[in-house]
Formats: sequence, C-alpha cells, structure tokens
Amino acid sequence: MKKLINDPSRVVDESVEGFGLAHADLVAVRTDPLFVVRADAPVRGKVGLVSGGGSGHEPLHAGFVGRGMLDAAVPGAMFTSPTPDAIAPATAAVDGGAGVLHIVKNYTGDILNFETAAELADADGIEVRTVVVNDDVAVEDSLYTAGRRGVAGTVAVEKIAGAAAERGDDLASVASVAERVVANVRSMGVALSACTVPHAGTPSFDLTDAEIEIGIGIHGEPGRRRIPMAPADEITDLLTTPVMDDLGLASGDQVLLLVNGMGGTPLSELYVVYRHARRLLEGRGATVSRSLVGNYVTSLEMQGASVTVLRLDDELTALWDAPVHTAALRW
Amino acid sequence: MKKLINDPSRVVDESVEGFGLAHADLVAVRTDPLFVVRADAPVRGKVGLVSGGGSGHEPLHAGFVGRGMLDAAVPGAMFTSPTPDAIAPATAAVDGGAGVLHIVKNYTGDILNFETAAELADADGIEVRTVVVNDDVAVEDSLYTAGRRGVAGTVAVEKIAGAAAERGDDLASVASVAERVVANVRSMGVALSACTVPHAGTPSFDLTDAEIEIGIGIHGEPGRRRIPMAPADEITDLLTTPVMDDLGLASGDQVLLLVNGMGGTPLSELYVVYRHARRLLEGRGATVSRSLVGNYVTSLEMQGASVTVLRLDDELTALWDAPVHTAALRW
Repeated sequence: MKKLINDPSRVVDESVEGFGLAHADLVAVRTDPLFVVRADAPVRGKVGLVSGGGSGHEPLHAGFVGRGMLDAAVPGAMFTSPTPDAIAPATAAVDGGAGVLHIVKNYTGDILNFETAAELADADGIEVRTVVVNDDVAVEDSLYTAGRRGVAGTVAVEKIAGAAAERGDDLASVASVAERVVANVRSMGVALSACTVPHAGTPSFDLTDAEIEIGIGIHGEPGRRRIPMAPADEITDLLTTPVMDDLGLASGDQVLLLVNGMGGTPLSELYVVYRHARRLLEGRGATVSRSLVGNYVTSLEMQGASVTVLRLDDELTALWDAPVHTAALRW
Repeated sequence: MKKLINDPSRVVDESVEGFGLAHADLVAVRTDPLFVVRADAPVRGKVGLVSGGGSGHEPLHAGFVGRGMLDAAVPGAMFTSPTPDAIAPATAAVDGGAGVLHIVKNYTGDILNFETAAELADADGIEVRTVVVNDDVAVEDSLYTAGRRGVAGTVAVEKIAGAAAERGDDLASVASVAERVVANVRSMGVALSACTVPHAGTPSFDLTDAEIEIGIGIHGEPGRRRIPMAPADEITDLLTTPVMDDLGLASGDQVLLLVNGMGGTPLSELYVVYRHARRLLEGRGATVSRSLVGNYVTSLEMQGASVTVLRLDDELTALWDAPVHTAALRW
C-alpha cells in the first residue's frame, strides 16, 4: 500500500485539519468530536443542513459545506459511519432556530446513527427531518444496505436542498424538495480497479486485469456482474440504460447529467463517458440541460466512474443554478 | 491496461468533444485542427491568451478556457506537443486586435511548435508574445527539456495573466505580469505509481511497491531520486524544502500554496500534504494567504502530488482573486 498518509489511524483527522486550514474562509473544523461547519454557522432563521458518512468519498461531504449547500458535514472513519455523538453536536451547531435536515445515504450504519442523533437533538428541542438518498439502481439490498444504496445523486440532493434552505424555505419545504430530488435521481457505477482502505492495507476486493465490475458500490460492494473489459461506449451503455429505464425517462424530459469519477480515473476518460451518456439520453428524446463532470463522490483511488441522471423541472433547475460557495462546488 | 476509452487513437478527440458538449456555455470546440476557444472569442480589444501542450494533464489546459483565464487551449496527442498547424489557427481565432500571449510549458517540442506558430501568426499580422513556464525545481535539463520543466505553476501563470488581460492590460503588460509569476513560482512533485499512455499500453516507467520517485515530471520523466515509501510528512518535506530554498523564501513573504494531485491520488491525501506543507512554510515565517488543493495538472492516473509555492505581492493577489469562469476554476 502506497499512500500519502502518515498513520492510518490519523488520516481522517489530518486530512480534515488540512481541509480546514485551506478553506478557513468557508468552514470551521471542530474536534472531539470531529465535524466541519460553515464558518458563519448557525445562520439565524435558516434551516440547517447536515450530512455525513464514512470518509474516503471526498470531496463528499465536507467539500460541500458552505453558502447554498451544507451547513455541516460529519466525517466518519474511512468507509465507516460517523457516530451519533458527532452527528448530534453538528446538528446543534447549525440549528438557527428553523430546524435541521439530515441528508443520509442509505447505509444501515448511517441510518441508525443519524436516527439516534436526531433523537438526541429532539431531546434538546431541535426539530430534525431526515431524507434518505438511495439513487443506485444497480442492486436492491447489498452489503451494508437494506434497499438501494446512496451514491453520487447525493450531490444533487445536497445542492438543491441547500439552495432551498438558503432562499428561506421552511424545514418541511426543504425536506420536500430534497425528497423530490431523491424521487427523480438515479445512478450506476463501474469499477475498473479496487481501492485500499488505509487501516486495512489491502485492496477491498479482487479484480483481474481483464475484468470490471458493473454496478459497483462506492465502498467496493458487489454490483450486478463482472464482465470482461470493454470499450467505454459499451460500458457507458451498461450504466446509462438501467438508469434511464428505472427513471422512466420520457421524450421531452430535461435532465442533469453527472458523470462522476471514482477517484483514480483521469478526467479525460470521464468526458469520454459523458459524450456517450449524453448521446444515449438524447437518443431517448431527453435534453441534457445541466451537466457536471468530475470527482465528486469517490472511493479513494478506485478507478471507475458513475453516471447519474436527475430529471429536472423548472424549480429544481433554478435551485441547481442558484449560487453556491463551497470548496468543491462553486458558482 | 484498463481505461474508459474506445480507441487509443481517438481518446483525445472524443474527450474534447465530450468536454465541449458539457461546457457549451463556456467554450466552443473547433476540429481539423482540434482546439478549444472561449465561446465568445475573439474578445474585441482584449489580449488573447493561448496555451496548450500534450493531453493527459487535464483539466490543463482546456479546463482553464473561459472568462478571466485562457482564450484558447490546444491539446496535442497524449503527452505529445500540439503542432503549429493547430496553434496558429487557435492564435488567429482569439486575436481581438490587441495581440496574443502564448503560455508555453518548457518542453522542447512545445517550445519549437509554439515558436513556429508565432511566426505563422506574425506573418498574418498578429502580434504574439511568449512566456515560458519552468517552475519545476527538481532537475535542470531532463527528458524532453532543456532547462527546467513547466508543471503545476502553469495554473498560476494562466490565472493571473488571464485576469490581467481581462481587466484590459495591453500585451506587454500581460506578458510582464506573466513573467513575474514565472519568476516567483516553484514546484516539485512525487510519484507513487506510474501512468499508462493509451497508445503505449504499458506503464511509462517501473516503480516497485516499496519505492517512490521524488521530483517526478508530469510525463513520468525521472526526478531526483527514488526512495523507499515514507510517511506523507516526510515526503512533503522533500518536496517543499527545495521549493522554498529555490524561491529564497523569506520571513514575512505572502504565498499561494497549491497542492496538486497527479490524477490517481485521493483528495483526502492531498489535504494531508497541504497540512504539512503549510506548516513548513509557516515555519519559515511565510504566510499562506491563498490556497488551492486538487487535481489541476495531472499525469493521467498517476498516483502522487506536487507542491507549488507562488510568492505573492498585492497585485498578484488581486489578479489571483479576480473573477474566473472556466470548467475547472471558477470564482
């Protein structure tokens, strides 16, 4: 294992410390327990947005803390859910009196820990609503998951709900728009290589030089099947078609197309995937009216990509377009 | 070799096509010859900025085309200089009557081809100035290079010169501020793994599981030496100390610190490097007043990172802070 780390048990702390130093204009890092909040938290009268999950998916979630997106991110250990005793104080830290929305990817540990944290916050008089992201169409139930997994669609949920909170929507409305994103977003990914969790020291799964895993989870959980290595357009088809089918994509639909890198794939390859995914969408009569291409929800140094499609309406488009100022997303 | 490509001979064309589709609000892609221009090029009365080089370093350079940065980017084949017959029309396409600045990384092929293109443009009555970026302190002369190589410091040159052009500086002034950045920026990188150029099909060099290359070039050119794998802080020291020494960093200096990923290294690790590089700079009495962390000048899927330090003054800081709207850098 070759990694730019000092000590596997310290990598999350040191990385988040570096993140806080690099982006002190945007965020503050709290320690014991560890979480990241907007520099100006809590914002009085605004619904607070908290997300979090295992580390190793950077820039998710800390990279999305800032104006127009998250108020706090709670990083767990690598590929390990954050604990309620970190989520609860993060929730309290961003409560501006209008309640807090928890955005949770659908993994059993995350669900349980955010639930416990919400109960703790409730006991302190903070109203909490929860939205669960489960955009991965690859498999029903999986390692760590009952039902579908939450993957790169989380970026869209956090961006759009963040914009709704920023314009002053109340908690029920922010939760409602977040649910609408969840209902309209689907993803599927592929792994060309495994990744190595620092404290494990060996790759999370084995993949020969000749095969790839279609439908991979962001922790290397098994997907739909392994196939021999194939041209990018063929792989893109295997990702995009199930996404379009599951979404019930219809002619005339306006969509956001997100091609997300798993961390170790060159940007040039992501644009090759984007090119064909866009053609497939247009082949169904959809219009790609918004796009995002890059590493947003990663799996450490895994090579691979995922395709996410969000069906847009006028309000979702306007909220996507609204200003955002975070380390990883800014316009 | 596992890559998300269709055909090694088509990967640059397909990737740039995808890039153009994803960012049609910012850029236009011209083909035969292939180059990328600002959607609104030429901008009347503004100095045009053209850069380019071998592909495989994305988002450099096309990702930096847009308002406040480059007017055109000319992508060569993977790790191969673009030809004069592409650079010359790109130069003509962005000439708004105020002349054009070529920003060239110091590789023999790039130097020669940009020189020839400048002569062609001159014959067409377009005034061209050239600035050569040579920020890599690792080695004097190298594979493909006489003198120092141009690496991640190129981002700072393009951003700052782009801001000067955008505010209306004339060609001599834009060239002068670009030279000032070159004079004040230094970089050094490390490779933990090699990368594979698609048309080659095998890794560009060999590195055992136990060793890393200090001072690597962005095409995998040899660096200063190979050492056994070491903790991140130690590696960061080996990169940052020569940069500070060569720059003659003094107490009280204000700097921009750029920690750049080589493409295959997780963002979390780049922040671990940033944390220690910042401490080292502060240990010399410098103040890190601006920061950038991420994949900006990559080597395909190479694992590794580079540390770039730019000594700032008030004008360079203001130009760095000026608005920029490109695919890869935006504020």
